[in-house]
Parts: sequence; structure tokens; C-alpha cells
Amino acid sequence: MSKVRVVIENISPQVDCGRFPAKRVIGESVCVEADVFADGHDAVAAVVLYRHESAAEWQAVPMVALGNDRWQGRFIVKLLGKYLFTVSGWVDHLESWRRGLVKKAEAGLATDLDLQQGAAIARAMAERAPEVDARRLREWANAIADFARDREERIALAQSEELQELARKHVDPEIVLRHAPAYEVFVDREKARFSTWYEMFPRSAASRPGSHGTFKDVVALLPYVASMGFDVLYLPPIHPIGLTERKGPNNITKASENDPGSPWAIGGAEGGHKSIHPELGTMEDFRHLIAEAGELGIEIALDIAFQTTPDHPYVKEHPEWYLKRPDGTIQYAENPPKKYQDIYPFHFETDAWKALWKELRNVVDFWIATGVRIFRVDNPHTKPFAFWEWLITEVHRTHPDVIFLAEAFTRPKVMYRLAKGGFTQSYNYFPWRNTKRELVEYFTELSKPPVSEFFRANLWPNTPDILTEYLQFGGRPAFMVRLVLAATLGASYGIYGPAFELLENRPREPGSEEYLDSEKYQTRRWDRDRADSLQEIIARINRIRRENAPLQSDRGLIFHPTDNESLIAYSKTSGEAGDSILAVVNLDPHHAQSGWVTVDLETLGLPAEGNFQVHDLLSGARFLWRGARNYVSLDPGHSPAHVFRIRRRVRTERDFDYFM
Amino acid sequence: MSKVRVVIENISPQVDCGRFPAKRVIGESVCVEADVFADGHDAVAAVVLYRHESAAEWQAVPMVALGNDRWQGRFIVKLLGKYLFTVSGWVDHLESWRRGLVKKAEAGLATDLDLQQGAAIARAMAERAPEVDARRLREWANAIADFARDREERIALAQSEELQELARKHVDPEIVLRHAPAYEVFVDREKARFSTWYEMFPRSAASRPGSHGTFKDVVALLPYVASMGFDVLYLPPIHPIGLTERKGPNNITKASENDPGSPWAIGGAEGGHKSIHPELGTMEDFRHLIAEAGELGIEIALDIAFQTTPDHPYVKEHPEWYLKRPDGTIQYAENPPKKYQDIYPFHFETDAWKALWKELRNVVDFWIATGVRIFRVDNPHTKPFAFWEWLITEVHRTHPDVIFLAEAFTRPKVMYRLAKGGFTQSYNYFPWRNTKRELVEYFTELSKPPVSEFFRANLWPNTPDILTEYLQFGGRPAFMVRLVLAATLGASYGIYGPAFELLENRPREPGSEEYLDSEKYQTRRWDRDRADSLQEIIARINRIRRENAPLQSDRGLIFHPTDNESLIAYSKTSGEAGDSILAVVNLDPHHAQSGWVTVDLETLGLPAEGNFQVHDLLSGARFLWRGARNYVSLDPGHSPAHVFRIRRRVRTERDFDYFM
Repeated sequence: MSKVRVVIENISPQVDCGRFPAKRVIGESVCVEADVFADGHDAVAAVVLYRHESAAEWQAVPMVALGNDRWQGRFIVKLLGKYLFTVSGWVDHLESWRRGLVKKAEAGLATDLDLQQGAAIARAMAERAPEVDARRLREWANAIADFARDREERIALAQSEELQELARKHVDPEIVLRHAPAYEVFVDREKARFSTWYEMFPRSAASRPGSHGTFKDVVALLPYVASMGFDVLYLPPIHPIGLTERKGPNNITKASENDPGSPWAIGGAEGGHKSIHPELGTMEDFRHLIAEAGELGIEIALDIAFQTTPDHPYVKEHPEWYLKRPDGTIQYAENPPKKYQDIYPFHFETDAWKALWKELRNVVDFWIATGVRIFRVDNPHTKPFAFWEWLITEVHRTHPDVIFLAEAFTRPKVMYRLAKGGFTQSYNYFPWRNTKRELVEYFTELSKPPVSEFFRANLWPNTPDILTEYLQFGGRPAFMVRLVLAATLGASYGIYGPAFELLENRPREPGSEEYLDSEKYQTRRWDRDRADSLQEIIARINRIRRENAPLQSDRGLIFHPTDNESLIAYSKTSGEAGDSILAVVNLDPHHAQSGWVTVDLETLGLPAEGNFQVHDLLSGARFLWRGARNYVSLDPGHSPAHVFRIRRRVRTERDFDYFM
Repeated sequence: MSKVRVVIENISPQVDCGRFPAKRVIGESVCVEADVFADGHDAVAAVVLYRHESAAEWQAVPMVALGNDRWQGRFIVKLLGKYLFTVSGWVDHLESWRRGLVKKAEAGLATDLDLQQGAAIARAMAERAPEVDARRLREWANAIADFARDREERIALAQSEELQELARKHVDPEIVLRHAPAYEVFVDREKARFSTWYEMFPRSAASRPGSHGTFKDVVALLPYVASMGFDVLYLPPIHPIGLTERKGPNNITKASENDPGSPWAIGGAEGGHKSIHPELGTMEDFRHLIAEAGELGIEIALDIAFQTTPDHPYVKEHPEWYLKRPDGTIQYAENPPKKYQDIYPFHFETDAWKALWKELRNVVDFWIATGVRIFRVDNPHTKPFAFWEWLITEVHRTHPDVIFLAEAFTRPKVMYRLAKGGFTQSYNYFPWRNTKRELVEYFTELSKPPVSEFFRANLWPNTPDILTEYLQFGGRPAFMVRLVLAATLGASYGIYGPAFELLENRPREPGSEEYLDSEKYQTRRWDRDRADSLQEIIARINRIRRENAPLQSDRGLIFHPTDNESLIAYSKTSGEAGDSILAVVNLDPHHAQSGWVTVDLETLGLPAEGNFQVHDLLSGARFLWRGARNYVSLDPGHSPAHVFRIRRRVRTERDFDYFM
């Protein structure tokens, strides 16, 4: 119950009724919208109120009416971490009066009494205003109510911008509604939105045949990685590996003596999650690697895999963190009827869960202290959502620049929940979306609210766990197709190399997505100088990404119709009136495909009539296109894709054809 | 932070994140859905918890998995007023263990240790259970862990329904998540969903020419109203009418002495909102009218118009409830440049707003005390939303059977907000939705969540304020078309009579939606016995509504394609496996139209192949249709519509043709 007459509804952005923050990166704008209206015919006004969590004061931005009672206002996020925002609105009596006065004046019906009413509203405001403003409001009221002055002149005075401004500052607080609760936006650094990942196994980095690769070997390979244009180098777990039940090549149950085991089987006599596998080097070597990579613009990303082997120090030190079976042994991982005796999962329902959570946080803090700011989290969906939300929130409190990539290949709602709970980026179904229909459906879902507000996809054509059928059977063109799709559909993407650029496509057995002789269980040697390596094309596409802002964000993705199911066309446009990238990809790795693409000229900022040039940044070729429908032919043996840059035409140039 | 691993998201029904209740009528079920899942592979379980606000105890209904992590449970609302519900979920360890055991057993890998694990889970539950249940759980645990018994038999024991039941009752509270907040459902009586309204001006009810109609005259007309099948008789305001600035016939500015004025110009020397216009009769007459109507199954609905004339007693008694202008006069109603000097709106921003709200509530309470349970609220959108929400909530606290119909013809969000805030039914855009496309779009919006959860449309082809162009120019067929549409698209509908059944279609002037010689400003005499009266067809269609459950609800509305823009086809089906009503209407009142209707056979419960009979309840005719596509021809001069009853075919009778 109150005097408040305005209502505020349906504020966006919001995720699950404000339960989770929306996500932005630094420098982006938050476009806030809300339904704002009141009873009757009176005018309403609204502002967006916002502040960084560290600021005491709220900032106000006026909102403008979009029609149909929808209002909009924007603010730019300039600091990392959490912002809060809400909407405040009120019935704007001075504006209502002004509008009525204008209508009456136009009808020749404005009276002195009408003017006196405006003066009365201003005088009431003056009583709430500090002296400077109060004086201006009273001066204005006196002028407008001054019978000695010309009435037309006084009506004109009512239109004063300054007056409206003053009025907005001194609204009667009793009639103002401030929407509760406030909503949250979490602001990451730019890399959260735009990042280019390369995964490699350090133990396979050795230059000398037969030896175990080291961090020093990785340093030697940094120029190779940098030459391809990657800015994140992600390493599988670098910790000591357990011996008990260690798996051998191709995941056979019993390893032989020289088998190195899986890096995800963490923990041995040499230590656990805060130790380094001795064969990789020392902590100093690791710090050196971080520094050397940094020189080349590359960040090192570490793997967080919260599970242990039976040999992990935790097993002895904290048996209470594991589930004990009736026979007193510790419960190993199971997905019945499969058993994983080499892995002990943590028991998150233990009575000692607080200590467990704290220690796992210590692990993350430990690596942050060494300089790591990016973590790829292994199977987060097998640990409680509440745990991750707490962990990430705690880490971000002191280190809002830390990026967490969720490796959860599971059911859609589970993946989305992890992203809502704080994961910066997420693996996703891209590896298994191969047809035009699948790609259009999935990326349309990802690029629209609500998903786009909290889920940032990181697109991987392959991983050490995923060698898709498409790659197994499509040859080099298939690798190129998936590379172009990943790099242009996703502002963040990554490859597991050198398996990817060297076209590794042999499965462990038919029907399997596991690699034959997978690096997960053995070291491999790679011939990085192979003539058919994709190294060069990867370098080219990553340069295109760096040079073209539209590819650095997943906003502004639009699909354009084609008349051939094997041809997919989509564009990305950055901001208002920006240039666009238009990709046309032949999804069939076996045959040349051709057809007509119907581009949405308005989205691309092109005129409805006339010619325009499209510039294929992949091949360097230029084509003259005319109107919306244009012919495309793509031979996968040559190049399976066009990546066109399209310059937005200035509207006043409509009568000229445009050439870049 | 906690041991809880389950998450609960996206509960439905909910309106604006739970800010407003969803609506149901007594006897309906509330189908609650939620996303429920946990990390890892464990089974989860969930229940709907619900209670009537008057009950202390929560009831639990198990939810079932629909797939894709969506769960569903239902409860029936049996009491008027507010219900609360939420969802509770947990990781179901016994069920997880049981599933794992089954898989292991199938693979021949189940061990005694696996059985002991189940026993351990049951024993832990026994510690939380009261003695009776605890004994059963322990017996079960002992049996399953008894090495002396056959292992197969013990594995079979794990499937016990009783055990699962017991387990659900004694879940460790530390791992249970109960979603907060709880959501609300407001339960109305059945008339909120299904009602048939007739509006008439009592002052035009006189049997003697030239005299002012009275409540007694209305009593005399009740059999006429009842014969047409209406169950709500709505009267415009029955209060004394002001003299100051009274409007004359056709809304001319100055009334002459004998002009009765507008019933909405409330308040004169004889009293205000709690008084009866002396020429209509006494309070006793009014009570008599209510009683007599009740005998015929008709409820009297009163008009709530919260505004006064300058002559209303409030003006002298509570000048503080009005806005004073700088010259000391009271602000009359304005919509610049239009002025309505005969109406003083209340000033809801007055400092005395609490007293004003209280008095307006007294008005409603006063009429409730006389026996009125239905109110049609005039222009609610010109009074604060918060006021209505408070008023309706307060009234419903003691009288949950009271129905409020919102007469807000304004912007969509404003209309929806009033419905969310408590209005039981709402006028809507139906009068101006005439084409197939308009009707399909609008009624699809209204019949789907979120709108269907809070907005109950009441469809009026005409009102004293609305004589649409369609009715002005379409002749008798137009009236029939709009009648059939209103009565079959809307479970609640009404007509303003006898203007409607007597085909009154003369506008005040060309382009106006006002009636010529509107009853709003003068009494009228009507020839109810005219040969072309729609009385009989109205009676028929209202009988069809009473006899066919699908027309008594707006759920289950589906549109079916036709190949003629003038032919609209739609069906309503009640509940699961119920019969359907299929309406086909020719929207062109001037020409016969024919074409093919493609009905959704599955929705109607009809087989894909073979003949079926459709029975036109309007004409009595029967047609033999075959398959989905059937031909229809409708001549507006004869009948512009079919209203078919379609009996759902029992699936096992698929091989027979079905005849009703």
C-alpha cells in the first residue's frame, strides 16, 4: 500500500528471475529493458540504476520509451567483477502537465489556470530541492504564472529542457518505485568472450625420440603455437600420476612398467593436486613456461580434475573425504556395470564436506599464486553445482580475471546450470552438430537470450576424448570444414593438437570416438612438418579472427538461407553499423556443392539494389555480388568455405555501387 | 553451502517469478512441472508440496520424470482461495543403488558387497524413521545382507515397492532441497471460468411507455433473460445520478430537465456509491431482484465505477480525496484537450489515500452484504494497480467467491497487469479482432502460458460503448458470426442487450463506435418480440455451451487450417480423451464462402483413415467426413457457422467407422 502508481515488470537481462548474474566482458554495454507504466494517462519516467559492487553510490541513466510500454537504458561496464542494476520509475507530473498543455494550446484551449498548475508542480519540487535548484524552479514557476507576461511565451517556457532535467532530480520520493531485487551482471576480461585455444600433452613435446616431454620442451614449441595464432595453451593435468590400477595404452586394464598412465589419474607418492609430475620439470620450470608463453601473447591454462587415484596423499590424510564401502574399502568410480578402480571420486556428502571444499579451493588458489588465470575444469557435472558456484564466486571475489572452462558433455540443462553457476566458458555439442539443420538450430539457441546471457560456448572440433565420425571419414576437407565452423561460429574455439592439424583420424576401434594410441595413455611423437599439416590455414583463420571484430563476439550471429542442404551461410556483425563477416561453408567433405545464398541485406547494411563486392579473406578472392541472391560453388578439395568481409554501406551512398 | 546436491529450476505454473498467483477454479488440477537434477549419475526424486493457505500441513505428491530432466506432479484444488505449492527434491541413494545393482546383475557382476551397500543405506534410513518403519527397514536390510539366502532372491528384494515407499519417507533432511519461494495459485469458483453474461439498463425495462424502469420491471424480464440461457445479469451503476453538468441524449453537453443522465455519473443529493437511484426502487427491491434472479439460476452483477459527480456526498465530506486546482476548484476529468466537467476522479496520490482506499473497499463490502458476488469494474486502468491488488486481496480473504471483471480497454501490458493483480475476468480486444489472422493470433496468445495462467477473457461482441464497424455494416449475419465466435471461443462471454439480440446497429455518427440514442444518456424502449430477434439462436448456443464441457473452458483451444481466409476453424477439447467441439465460421457476413478444412485428427481423437460423422449442434445436420481434409460451405444468409460435436473414437475401435 502506498502512493506509488508506476509499475515495473519484466526487466532484462535477467537469468532465472535474478538467481544468477548475466555475463558481460569489460567495455561492453548492458542494455537494460523493462516494462514501465502507470494507471491512467499520465506520463511516466524511468532510469536504470547501477553500480559496481565496490562502489557505494548508484549511477542513474535515463531510459527511453521504445513503444508498447517498453523502456530501455544502457550502461558500460568498466570494471571486472559484479555489477548490480535495477530500474526506478515514477509518474512524471511535470511532463504529464506539459503534454496536456501542448495539446490544449494546439486546440486554443490553454488558460492561465493551466499555467498556474505547472507552476504549482514546480514549486512543490522546489521544496524538496537544495537551494540552487530550488531557486531555478521557483524562478521558472514565477515566470510561468506571471500574468503580465505573454501567454505564448509562458507556454514555450514549459518546454524547457533544463526544467525537465531539474524535475527528474527532485521527484517526490513517495511516488517513486525502485524495483527490488536488483539484478547482477558479472564482468569478465575480454578473453572470456574471445579466445583461441590449443591443447597439447607436454609429455609428447620431447624433441628427442623416446624421452618424456618436459615444460622446457613445451617452451621450445611455443613459437610453433604462436605462429598459428593461439592465445591460450591448455595442458592436461601436470600432477604426479598414480600407479595402482594404472591404465595402459588404449585404456587396457593393466599398464606395463613403462606406461606413463593417464594424466587425469592424479596423485602418487610424489604428491597430488599441488605437485608437479617430476618428469615434466619443476615448479620453476612451470613458472618459466608461463613467462615465456606470456612473451608470445599466450596464456597457460591448467586442468582442474577433482578426483584422485588410490595413491593420492589425500587418501591417507583424509580418508573421510571418500565413501567407505561396507567392507571398509574406498568406493572407486563406477557407472554400472563399468568400474574405474584407478579413480577415487570425492564423496561430497561426507560430514567433512566443509574441509573438502576448502582444500579444493586451496588447490585453485595454489595455481593462481603461480600465475595461472585460466582453468579447464574436468567433468564439473560430477561434482555438486553448489560447490562450483561457491568456489568460483570465492575465487572471483579476489581474482575476477580468472576464467573457468567447463568440460561438461552431458544433458543440456546440466550444462546450462554449470554456466549459470559461474563457469566462464563451456564445452558444448558443437562436435556432434554436423548438418545445416543441426548447426542452425543449436547456434540459434545459443545466440539468443536467455542462453546467450550466461552460456559462452567454446567450440572444439576435437578433444583427446572426441574424435568424431565426421573427422574419421571426411579426410582433410572435414578437418578444414570443422576448423572454419569452429573459428567463425565461435568467438572462442580450440583444437587438440597436434592431432588436429596433423589430421589424426584413426579411432581405437570402429564406432569409437576414442583415438587409437591415445595420448591419454601413452606419449606420442608427432611430425609437425608434414606437408599436409593444417598449420598454415589455422594461422590464416586465426589472423582473420584477430583482424575482424565481428568474429570476436557471439552476438550478432544470423543465419542466411541457402537452397542446398550442404551449404550453410551465416554472418556476424559487431555493434551498430559495423562491418560483417559472412561465412559460406560446404558441409559435405566429399563433393563440390553449389547453390544460391539469400543474404539478409539489411542486417549486412547493404542496399536492396545494385552490386557490392565480397572479399574472401581465406582465399583472397573478390566477387561482385548483386542483390540478395547470389551463387556460390565450393569444392572441398580446394577450399570448403568462403569467409567474406562485407563492408556496411553508408546509407547516403545508396545510389552508388560499393567496392571495398 | 551444504550437502545438498539436487537443483530445482524453472517451476511452472508461475507468473512473473511468483510475484502473482496462477489462477484455477475449484476442482481443476494444478499440473506442476520443474527441472530437477543433480550432479553425476545418481537418481533423483521429487515431490510437489502443496497446501491451502488455511491448512497447516503440506501435502506431498510424487513427481514423475518426463525426460530431459523435467518432472511433473499434479494436485487437485478443492477449496476456494489461495493455495501454496513448491517442489522438493533429493538425490535418491536407495534408488541409485537399486539401478546400479540391476545393471550389475544383468552383467553378472553383482556381489555380496553390492547387497551389503544397499543394506547400509536402509539401516541409515532406519535411524531416522519412527519405530514401525525402522523395524521394516532393518528387517529388509538384514534379509538382503543375509549371506545364507539366495543371492538372486536378495537382488529381487531390492525391487520392493514398499521399500522405495519407505525410503522416500525417511530421506536424510540434510540432502533435501525445498525450493524457495513457494508459488501461489488462486482458486475461484467455477463461474470464474465459465459464465454467460447479459447486460441491460434497468431504466429501459419499464413495461409502460414513457416511464422509468425499476428493479420490479427487471424482475418481470428475468424469464426472458433466463430463456436465452444467461447466468449473469449485469446492471450498469444503480446509484443516484448527478445533476451538475449532466449530459443529455447522445452525450450533448447540456441535459434538459427530463434527461436521466449517465448512470456512470455517480452521486447526487440522494446519495452516492452505497445508495440506490430512487427511481429504480428500494434496497428491498434490489434484494428481491437478487433473490428472484437466483431462482432462475441468474446472478446479479453490479458495476463498480470509482468516480463521482460534483454532487456526490464525498465532495463535501472528503474534499481531500480530490485534486484541488490552484484556483481552489476541484480538478474534473480530462484527457487533453477533452474535458469531462461532470466527472471528478479520485486523487489517489492524496495524503489521505489510506482513508480513500478504505472507503472504496467499504463500497464493495456494502454490496457484498446485500448478496452481490460479481462486480464489473469500470475503467480499472485509471486507478492504481496497487489499489486493486489490495482491494481484491482483502475482499477475497473473507469472500473468495467474489468475481471481478475488469473493463480495461487499453494497452496490452496494462490489461495483463490488472489480471495478474487479481481481476478474475477481463474484457479484451475481441470486439476488434475480425479477420482469421487476427483471431488466430490473439486467441493463441490468450490460450497459452504465461497469459493463460492469469488472464481469463470475457468476450463481448458489443457493449454500450462499443458498436463495432463489423456490426454496423454486416447486418444480421454479422451479429450471428460475432455471437458464435464469442460463445465458442470464450468460455465466458456476454452481450449488451436487448441492443444485441435486436440487431441495433446505428452509430451516433459515421465513424463512431457510439450507439445513436445510446442508453447511456437516455431511456429506450425495445420491441423484444421482433421477428428477426436473435433470441432463439442465442438460447440455442447457450444450451450448447451448457451441454458441452469443452466450451466451458479456454484450455484445449486449437486452430485448424482452412484454405479460405474467410473461413476460420477451431476446436476445444476438455481434459484427456474428452469429446471435442469443432467450430467452423464464415467471417464474411455478406457472401457464402466455401473451402477445405484440414482438421488435426489426433487432437480430436479421430483415426487417420476412415469416415466419421460430425453433428452440427446449431442446425441439427449431420455430415459424414473422411480423413483430415473436408469441404465446408457456409451461407451467412442461412447460417454463418457450424458448431460440430465430435466424439473421440476409442483407439481400439480403430478399424470401425464411428457414428454418433
